[in-house]
Formats: sequence, structure tokens, C-alpha cells
Amino acid sequence: MGSTGTVAGGPPDIVRTAYASLRVTDIAQARWFWVDLLGFHVSDEDASTLYLRGSDELIHHNVVLRAAGAPALEYLSYRVRTPDDVARGAEWFAARGCRTRWIPAGATEGVGESVRAEDPLGFTVELFCDAAHAERLIQRFELRRGAEPARIDHFNVVVPDVRLAFEHYRSLGFGCSETIEDDSTLYAAWMFRKQTVHDVAFTGGAGPRLHHLGFFTPESHSVLRICDVLGSLHVEHHRERGPGRHGVSNAFYVYLRDPDGHRVEIYTSDYYTGDPDHETLRWRVDDPRRRDFYGNEVVPSWYTEAMPVLDLDGTVCPVREILQVSEVKVGADGFAAGPAGAGSSGSGPAAGTR
Amino acid sequence: MGSTGTVAGGPPDIVRTAYASLRVTDIAQARWFWVDLLGFHVSDEDASTLYLRGSDELIHHNVVLRAAGAPALEYLSYRVRTPDDVARGAEWFAARGCRTRWIPAGATEGVGESVRAEDPLGFTVELFCDAAHAERLIQRFELRRGAEPARIDHFNVVVPDVRLAFEHYRSLGFGCSETIEDDSTLYAAWMFRKQTVHDVAFTGGAGPRLHHLGFFTPESHSVLRICDVLGSLHVEHHRERGPGRHGVSNAFYVYLRDPDGHRVEIYTSDYYTGDPDHETLRWRVDDPRRRDFYGNEVVPSWYTEAMPVLDLDGTVCPVREILQVSEVKVGADGFAAGPAGAGSSGSGPAAGTR
Amino acid sequence: MGSTGTVAGGPPDIVRTAYASLRVTDIAQARWFWVDLLGFHVSDEDASTLYLRGSDELIHHNVVLRAAGAPALEYLSYRVRTPDDVARGAEWFAARGCRTRWIPAGATEGVGESVRAEDPLGFTVELFCDAAHAERLIQRFELRRGAEPARIDHFNVVVPDVRLAFEHYRSLGFGCSETIEDDSTLYAAWMFRKQTVHDVAFTGGAGPRLHHLGFFTPESHSVLRICDVLGSLHVEHHRERGPGRHGVSNAFYVYLRDPDGHRVEIYTSDYYTGDPDHETLRWRVDDPRRRDFYGNEVVPSWYTEAMPVLDLDGTVCPVREILQVSEVKVGADGFAAGPAGAGSSGSGPAAGTR
Amino acid sequence: MGSTGTVAGGPPDIVRTAYASLRVTDIAQARWFWVDLLGFHVSDEDASTLYLRGSDELIHHNVVLRAAGAPALEYLSYRVRTPDDVARGAEWFAARGCRTRWIPAGATEGVGESVRAEDPLGFTVELFCDAAHAERLIQRFELRRGAEPARIDHFNVVVPDVRLAFEHYRSLGFGCSETIEDDSTLYAAWMFRKQTVHDVAFTGGAGPRLHHLGFFTPESHSVLRICDVLGSLHVEHHRERGPGRHGVSNAFYVYLRDPDGHRVEIYTSDYYTGDPDHETLRWRVDDPRRRDFYGNEVVPSWYTEAMPVLDLDGTVCPVREILQVSEVKVGADGFAAGPAGAGSSGSGPAAGTR
Repeated sequence: MGSTGTVAGGPPDIVRTAYASLRVTDIAQARWFWVDLLGFHVSDEDASTLYLRGSDELIHHNVVLRAAGAPALEYLSYRVRTPDDVARGAEWFAARGCRTRWIPAGATEGVGESVRAEDPLGFTVELFCDAAHAERLIQRFELRRGAEPARIDHFNVVVPDVRLAFEHYRSLGFGCSETIEDDSTLYAAWMFRKQTVHDVAFTGGAGPRLHHLGFFTPESHSVLRICDVLGSLHVEHHRERGPGRHGVSNAFYVYLRDPDGHRVEIYTSDYYTGDPDHETLRWRVDDPRRRDFYGNEVVPSWYTEAMPVLDLDGTVCPVREILQVSEVKVGADGFAAGPAGAGSSGSGPAAGTR
Repeated sequence: MGSTGTVAGGPPDIVRTAYASLRVTDIAQARWFWVDLLGFHVSDEDASTLYLRGSDELIHHNVVLRAAGAPALEYLSYRVRTPDDVARGAEWFAARGCRTRWIPAGATEGVGESVRAEDPLGFTVELFCDAAHAERLIQRFELRRGAEPARIDHFNVVVPDVRLAFEHYRSLGFGCSETIEDDSTLYAAWMFRKQTVHDVAFTGGAGPRLHHLGFFTPESHSVLRICDVLGSLHVEHHRERGPGRHGVSNAFYVYLRDPDGHRVEIYTSDYYTGDPDHETLRWRVDDPRRRDFYGNEVVPSWYTEAMPVLDLDGTVCPVREILQVSEVKVGADGFAAGPAGAGSSGSGPAAGTR
Repeated sequence: MGSTGTVAGGPPDIVRTAYASLRVTDIAQARWFWVDLLGFHVSDEDASTLYLRGSDELIHHNVVLRAAGAPALEYLSYRVRTPDDVARGAEWFAARGCRTRWIPAGATEGVGESVRAEDPLGFTVELFCDAAHAERLIQRFELRRGAEPARIDHFNVVVPDVRLAFEHYRSLGFGCSETIEDDSTLYAAWMFRKQTVHDVAFTGGAGPRLHHLGFFTPESHSVLRICDVLGSLHVEHHRERGPGRHGVSNAFYVYLRDPDGHRVEIYTSDYYTGDPDHETLRWRVDDPRRRDFYGNEVVPSWYTEAMPVLDLDGTVCPVREILQVSEVKVGADGFAAGPAGAGSSGSGPAAGTR
Repeated sequence: MGSTGTVAGGPPDIVRTAYASLRVTDIAQARWFWVDLLGFHVSDEDASTLYLRGSDELIHHNVVLRAAGAPALEYLSYRVRTPDDVARGAEWFAARGCRTRWIPAGATEGVGESVRAEDPLGFTVELFCDAAHAERLIQRFELRRGAEPARIDHFNVVVPDVRLAFEHYRSLGFGCSETIEDDSTLYAAWMFRKQTVHDVAFTGGAGPRLHHLGFFTPESHSVLRICDVLGSLHVEHHRERGPGRHGVSNAFYVYLRDPDGHRVEIYTSDYYTGDPDHETLRWRVDDPRRRDFYGNEVVPSWYTEAMPVLDLDGTVCPVREILQVSEVKVGADGFAAGPAGAGSSGSGPAAGTR
């Protein structure tokens, strides 16, 4: 980290989680899953790339899928308020000793000039302001399919030290809506810029790895619908956990895995967090409702499996083992008491799954 | 009516409403509306005919649409319990002075030998038992679209004398779930064979005419969805009335009109009527909730417009004016108090609409 | 079994599953669970008995809960078409060597003269025709709470020999909508009299025991609601399995356990089975979607725990071990591969749970 | 308006619509409607005042209802970001020639020091920052009833000059999400501070009057539920318009009227507007979907009836006739073609309704 930690003007004014860029190994398989099944709209595509957005998204995309030899997260991208915030972001990360790189407008379809940085947590993050606007599909109900994704809601990342991740994003001006903790340990935290429960959340584990991308859908029956569709096609193994309601966030959810193992959450009905004195809700780690308000146990893979992340040069970032007490060891999830180690294998950069 | 009125073995054992055969003037337009928008599954088709079914239907079809020069109802078709009931039906109608005709198996795709009769109310009705089974689509959620029609639920017919229609169907063994009435007049009745609120219902007016076909969808959000889709495509004029909940039947509904003016109800959440002592629920004609439990007024076209019906030879049946007090004159629907005559124009065989 | 097996007039004409009589150990706790939480309507009650019905039920009750020293199923009660069918049922069971007993009208509130029999499967079953009608609550939306139970849908019983249970109910005139089977074994069957997927179903296991009572609710959001309410009150341990969609029946469901361990299913959106040639849908035992269409594993307790049943004298019926291959040994449920024996403990008359 | 129009520091930083203070003539009747039927939570109450909030609200209240001799809007209250913004607001309004008054902390239960101003549109508006926090009820599903109001979403006010209202709120820093307009006239506008479609909207008509208060509910089935409940109790006349989906905002809605005629909208499923370059969506006034995406006509009372507003001294503000072309004269709502003047009666301070 740089010598000062103080940059004129403070951190960049991040507006919200905007999109993620993922590597997938088979673009046709990815298209089947994300477009035909989940119902994302294709903003642009070529032989090796898909630009996808939800029906409420008004900028170019929420996900970029690029064909590559192995699945990974390339970077997480946040939208900032002004072009100056892009520059301010470059300075801010550089002042913290982070390697940064300017990306010219158009290098990613629909995205203006941006800066990317290797953040202190080990993730490559992008900041941009200018964006191409996409056709408004909010009221194109005839185009809705599958899970009816409306917009990207959040990133969830696996980090070896949740407190460190929390402090980093707090310094970036994020609020904290909810945590899982006990008297000595912060197990997980949900942090936001836009007025919802989160733009980013942290899960304790070997990292840096990408846990999942969360997408908003308007009502809970669409969460059930995508489960129904997966069963219909006998590809129900793409569902990993849920449907259920989270204790944290109050959202109704299901977790899916794409053909490369990228985890997707379909998510609805969280709440407004925009008031200046919004208080953090703190869940005790032994409350069985924190991860599933109905009391369903979290499946082990949800804790242990996550996707590798890349640095600015496209190299897989090394993974550090978890540096804190594991939630599954102390929590109420049934499988923690199962076969020894089931819930805490750590397991390294588990690439994909099924 | 024949001299006896008594047939050995009594009336045929009707199982349920099975399908209707409609004439449409443009098969491509009909396909757009019934298949692309509403979401019916195509069981069979050729240049001039469409055989459609809902996702829960296990026999060949619920609707036949045939290209012709003018829209009309050809006939209403009921399934009976055994082949003997087809013969019993032929005798039963003949004994009442009704013209009948045997139709060989396969004359309609997927339908075994049947008998058709010009019933005392002026409608051509068909009875059949044998039917081709169709592929089970109940759990093919990936094929659901639009209103997600599951099965045909009921016929609603316009008759000049509701009491007469009631007595006719009572003699056929139908139960009566609900009525609209006052001390002197029966304005409408809902009658059933299967264990739901109805297989057939009667609306008082110039007749015989077809009021609508009712199709079941599993949940109310699918009723809303088809309204959303129509608005998306700016063809919202195909929606005529609703969405809302009926007082009668408790069903959540919307009424649509196809390109020829055929009225379609999307209908969900009525109730079980299978107990032997199921009592008729009688609504007072001045209860504003009877037609819409929320109190929304019925639009005038819903009372005045209906489709012509054909006899066994395909000739349009002459329409008799209403022979009883009109519901809209005495009822609570706001428009009855509107511009003189708006609600009771009677209007003859109003063919189509927009 | 009696010498003839043939009774004049055949089996009684059973209309549907009507109610079950359960023993509970704490009537106040039972009232809290069934009335305050689940939302059943109280038709009658005294210090030791509760008579409960769903909002669509038009006869007196769907469940009787009686205070006693230990939880048990007293009897399952079916409604028959005519008073003669009660007598016919008495003869029919007697002819099969079953002990029967006439119960005078009014012995159970709201129920006319009935006959009870110890059926060949070891359950006490009641047949009645006359019943007191209850106030119609179908459109009393202001009274709906919790799971919004509308009517009883089915009984599910645990039997050591599913084939035997299937044959018994087939001889009583029940149709079979679905099964779980393989080339050599019938693992489970769903059988109906009313026009739904079932009135009774069989689960293979040590028996006779009661597996669960199934209640219909109009839409899936009410299934989610009761899960939400349990979490709110931090009594989520009363939820055992789900929410999810069944492969068998296509119904959306959740399983709950009352304070005595009686299992309750909240169930919606199955399908019509009333056609005379309705075909049985056969699920392979190794299809992971058969028990949960989304692929969620069945929890072990769901297979192993069930409630004791009483004979005509109120004595607990002895339980026989399962006589066939266990579904969980050959099926796809993940826990079958877990700790040895977890899924097949048989376990005797496991009384209650938590 | 003051001589400068420029205040150091610009306008106050308004966070969102927070609550409205209404006069009602019968507090018991109001409690029945708002609490027992709609499902608001009571934060505080005495013999003449009710403080109500939705289940997601974390500050003290969203509505204050005070007993008085005639129904009226006392004031609209916005929350600002800091205590300095309260002072900045006082200066800002004063600089525009508006009468202002400081209100000490606690004068309204749960509200810190605030300033109230008679704004240029004729409404009394309050700005406050400090607020008492209320018990978190977001996950108290067992307390949800009726329409399940979650939080206040917006105010809708009737103004004689929509353009003037638009300019006023733009100078206060509000964004504009949608409008109804044609080449010469702005008929209506939706403006926001929080990241939803609106905090305030303007309807053209005789004003200043309060059109309605809009409350958010999580899903559309709760909108249907309150309609069901009103019908159940045969008080369906408290529903005025809907259910339906708005073209503007895409929200699913119903409008109700309380016992004094105060209009309440239950509203769900609009969209995120937080991006800095969020574009205004402009509806043509002749698009029949703008007010109801399904094409249902707006009922005349919805355009003509609204509630009087009070000045800082509690005196009813005089109403000016509409100063622009009326939407209903040029729009597509069917009744505009009805009896002359039906849609534009203006009608003065129509106090209540039924």
C-alpha cells in the first residue's frame, strides 16, 4: 500500500455494480445457459464474445462472456458518477500501491474510457463512467424468459480475510447493510453504493475467488420458474442451492451454476438502504436463518467451490488459504457436523464443478 | 321435443367440456393470437386448420380453428364416459326432437366416433369418448408462454331464456354451482360435470350465440402476464375486460378477443364442487361484486357482443331476442345507468368487434 | 380375508378424502400451530378437541385434533356418495375379514352415521356420507392467514408392501395417477377418487404409519408465506422439507411438522385426472426429479419418521418392517449414499421428532 | 420569489419522500382502514393521532393521521441528508419568497428539528434529518396483512401548471424519470431523488390539491390481496381504480380511497433510476397505455377528485383552476369522449367522495 493513503478528493464516487467479465470455455454452451435458459438479452456478440444484459438495464451490458481455455473472472466493473471519478479512481488505487491500467473507450463494447486496478484483495476491478445506452426493454414482456433477469445486483467474492475486505470497501465509501459475525470474527459482510442491500459481498474462504454474480428479478415466481425450466430439461444439476429466502438481505433466491461452474444467483425482494443513517444488521453466526431463513442447510459446494480470478495481465491470481475462523465450522449449517472437513476443505481454486 | 322424453338408461354420462370448433377468417392471424401470444400448443395443423391444446391436456386438442369466410362457433364438444354414452346421447337428443348426426372416427383429427346434435337451445353439440392421447406437456415448463393455458375449463353461451338452458342441462345431469338471480328471474347459471365450478354457463341475451371459451391457467400471475404481453406489443385492444376476480366462481380472470372477435377467458383459482350435496350459491343481481369482486364495472361490449353459431349443416342459426329481463338493466353495473340503452342493445348476432 | 371377496354392488362409492382424526399431546400447542400459524379455521372446539377446516371446505371439518397422552393417527375418513355406500362399505370390509364398527351420527361433531374398519393395511378408516355444512369461507379473504389451507387434499401412509396397498385401493375403485417404480419393485403410488392426482398415496417403509396429511392452497406464494412466517417466529424447525416442486404430481410443496411430529404438506398446482382413460405416469426410481423436480435431496427424516396409527379400540398398531426394497437404497437421493443405514433405518414407530 | 434565487450551497440535499400528515374526520374509521385493512403498523397513537409505517420503514412513520373537522393534507415531508440541509432548505425556500417556520424536535413524534415551507406550488412541505428509529419489521412476516405496505414510495399532487411544478422540483435537484406530453404541453411528470421512478409526481388539474400517497408492496399478489379483502368485507367501494399495470413507471397498482376520500396507491415493481445519465422516458398523451398498460380506461373520479391542502397556519389553500390543456381532453381515456366536461370539471377542493 502506498505511503499516503490520502488522495485529493477522496475515493471515486462509485454509483453501482455494473458488469462482470467472465471467461467461459464454450461460447455456444454459455449462450444456451445464459440466453436460452436464464433469459438474458444479447446486446452484442461475435464468435468468441457475448454481451448480455437484463431487461431493466439501460446501458450496454451486465455480463461479458469471453471464450478462453479455462473459466475465470477477468474483472469486476463498477460505474462511477463522472469521468473525473475514473481518474480519481486511478489515483486512489495507485496511492494504495495497486497496479492500474487505463483502458481506451471501446476496448470493451459499449464502455467508455476506464481504469482497471489490481485491488488490495487480489481482484481486478474496473471503473468507468461513459457507456453506450441500450434499447429500453423494461416493458418488453414478450421477450422475458426463464429467470427474467432485470439487472445485475451484486458481486460476491471469496476472501481469506473478511475484515480486510470490509475495511477496503469502507474506504471506497461503501455502506454496510448486514454482517454475519460473533464476538471475535467477521464472517461475511454486505456492502452497498446504490440503495439496495449490496453491490458487493464477502464470503470467507480461500481467495481471491469469485463466489457468484447476483441478478435481480422482479418477483419470486420467476425464481421458481427457472427451477421449473431446469427440471423440465432434466438439467436440474445446474441448480446448486435453493429456492429459499435469505435471512441476510431478506431476498428470495436460487443459486445456479453455468456450464463452466460460474455461480449465478437469481435474487428478488430485498430492501431500500438509501437513508444516511441506515444501520447495519448483524446476524449471529449461529443463527440457522442467516443463510436460509427457512432453515434449509447450505450445501457444502456453496461454501467450498468458487472461481479463479485474473490479474491485469490475464494470469490466474494465486489463492491464499482462509486466514480466519471458517463460518461453516462454527455456524449452524448441518453439514458442518458431517464428514470431517466437508465444510472447510478450502480446496484451492476449484475450477468448475460438474 | 319427442313424445317421450324418457330414454332407457337416462342421459349420456358427460365427463367434461373437451373442445370447441371455431371458424376464423385468417388462420395466420389466428395462429399469431392463439399460439404465439396466448401460448397454446399446436397438436396438428394444415393450411386451413389448427388443433390446439393447453399444457395439461392429455387428449388431442381443446380448440379447433378452421379457416372460413366468417367467424362462428361450429360446435361445442363434450367428452362422455364410454362409447355407449355416445349412442345414449344420440338417442337422448333424438328423443327430444333434436336433429342428430353420426360423425365417423377421424373426421376430426384425434377424435373417435362421435354424435352431433342441434340441441334445444340452438347450439350444435358433440359427444365423443375415444380420443387420441397427446404428448404429456404438464412439466414442459420451457414451452410455457403468454397466458400459459393449461386446459379448457368451460363454455359460456348466450341464450334468450336462461331458465330453459338451466333445465336442459339439468336434465343432462349437470350440477349447478352458482347463479345470478332475483325473486323472479334467473339471469345466469354455472353448471358442471367435472369437479369444478362449471363446464358450461349461460348469459342472458339474444341467442343462441357463443359468449366465450374459458381456459384454466395455474396461477394469477399468468393472467397478469398475458395482459403485460399485449401491452408490450401495443395490441392491448385484444384485452376486453379485467384483470379481476369474479364474485361468481371466485376465479381470477381476464377476457380477451381474438382477431375475429372470439372471446377467450383466462381463468384460475376456482374451487372443488365434487361432493354429492354441493349447494348452489345464489348471487343477487344487484350485488356489484357478482361479476367483479373488486367492483369494477363490466364493459358494455361484454354483455352485448357474442359470436354466431352454426347448425349441423354449417348454416348460421337465427338469433332470437332476449326473452327475459336483462341483467344489465337491473344490475349494479355502472353502465346500465349510462347512455340510454347502452347496456341492453341486444344487437343481434354481433359478429366480431374491432 | 373373507371367503368371497365379492360383495353385492361392489365397493362403496368413495367420493374423496374428507378428514383425519389425530391425537395430540397439548391442545394449546396444537391450536397455536394449526390455527394461529397455518391458518386453519376452527369449526368447533372444546377443552380437548379441535375441529378444523380449510377456507374452501363446505362440510364441518378436515382435521380433528384430540388431546391424548401420545400422538397418533386415530383414523382416516373418506366421504362416500350415499348413505347406502356406508352400509356397502361395512359389508365390503367385513367380507375381507376386517373388523368394523358402526359409529352413530354426532359421535364426531358434524359427521352423520359412519362405519369404521381396520383395513387390510392396518389403518382404521371411516366412511360417512351425511355431514353438517359449514359456513362458506371461500371468499372470506380477510380471514386467510399463514399457509391459507383451502381443503384437505390427500393422506400419505407408510406401508411395508406398496404393491399390497396399491391392490387394496384399486379394489376400492381408486385410479392410479403416478408411481415410482423399477422393473421389479413398486416403491410408491398415488391413487385418487376425486379428479386430482390423489386422495391417498403410499410410501414404502415400516408400517402401518401415517406419513402426512396434504392440504391444498391456491397458489405457490402461500407455500412461501408459511415458510416466511416460521422463520419470522424463529420456529423454522417446524419446516422439514421444501419448498420445492414435486416431480410426482407437479405440485409445489413444503412439509411441516406440528408440535407432536405430525407431518403436514402444503400443496398446490397439481392437475385434473377425471378422464376415464387417464394414464398412470411412471417415474423411474433413479430419476432425481421424482421427489423434487429441482433436484434437492430429500432429508432423511422425511423417509424414516412417521406417526403410529390406532386400531378401532385405540390401541397402537404394531409396526412391521418394510418388506420390499427401500426407495432410498436405490434412489438418487444423496443421503442414501451417506452414513450407512441413514436412509433405511426403518426405526419402528418413530413418535414425533424434535 | 426572492431577489436572487441563488443560495450559497444550493438546494438542500433531499434523500427521499418520508411521510405525509393528513387530517381525517374519524380516527377510529381511519384506523380500521389504514391498520386493520391495509396493514400499516402503528408506531404510536393517542386518542386523536395515528403514526403509521410500512414493514420496511426503519424510521418512525410514513403517515400521520390527525383527527380534525375536515379532511386535508397538512404537509408533505422529505428527509434530507444532514442537519445542515434542513437549514439550507430554510434559506432556499425563504430566498424564493416562501414563508417558512422552524418546528422543534419532537413536535411530531419521532421527528427531529425540521423546517416547513409554503412552497411555490402552494403545498406545505417539511424537511427533516434527525428521526427516531423504529423496530425493524422487515422480516416479521407474521405481522403482514392486507396490502402489506412496505414503505412510502411517493407523493402525487395536482397542480394547475405542470411545467411550473417540474421546474420547481428540478431546481430542488430532482431527476425526471418519465413524462406525459405532446409537442406543446407537459401533462404530467415523475421526479425522483431516491433511486426509484419517483418521490413526487404531478397531475394537471385545479390545485394545489393532494392526488394520492403511493406505498410500495413487494409483489403483485399483495395488490390483488387487498382487492380481495375489500370485496370480502363488501367495502369494495374503497377501491377506485385498478388493479392494473401503469405504462408510466411499469408498476403494478391499485388505487383505494380511505373513509375521508384520501387516495392511496398500492404500488410494486418499478425500476432503478440511480445512474447519473438516466434518461427521461416520454409518453405521448394519446398512448392509451400510458396510464394503464392493459388499456383499461381511467375512471373519471381519478382525474377530478383530490384533497385540499393546508398552509402553515392550517388554513385551506385556495384552489386555482387548471392553467393548461387537460390531459383527459386530449388523451385516449374513453371517458374523455363521454358527457361533456366529465373529465375536466376541475371541481374545486373536492372533499372526499363516497
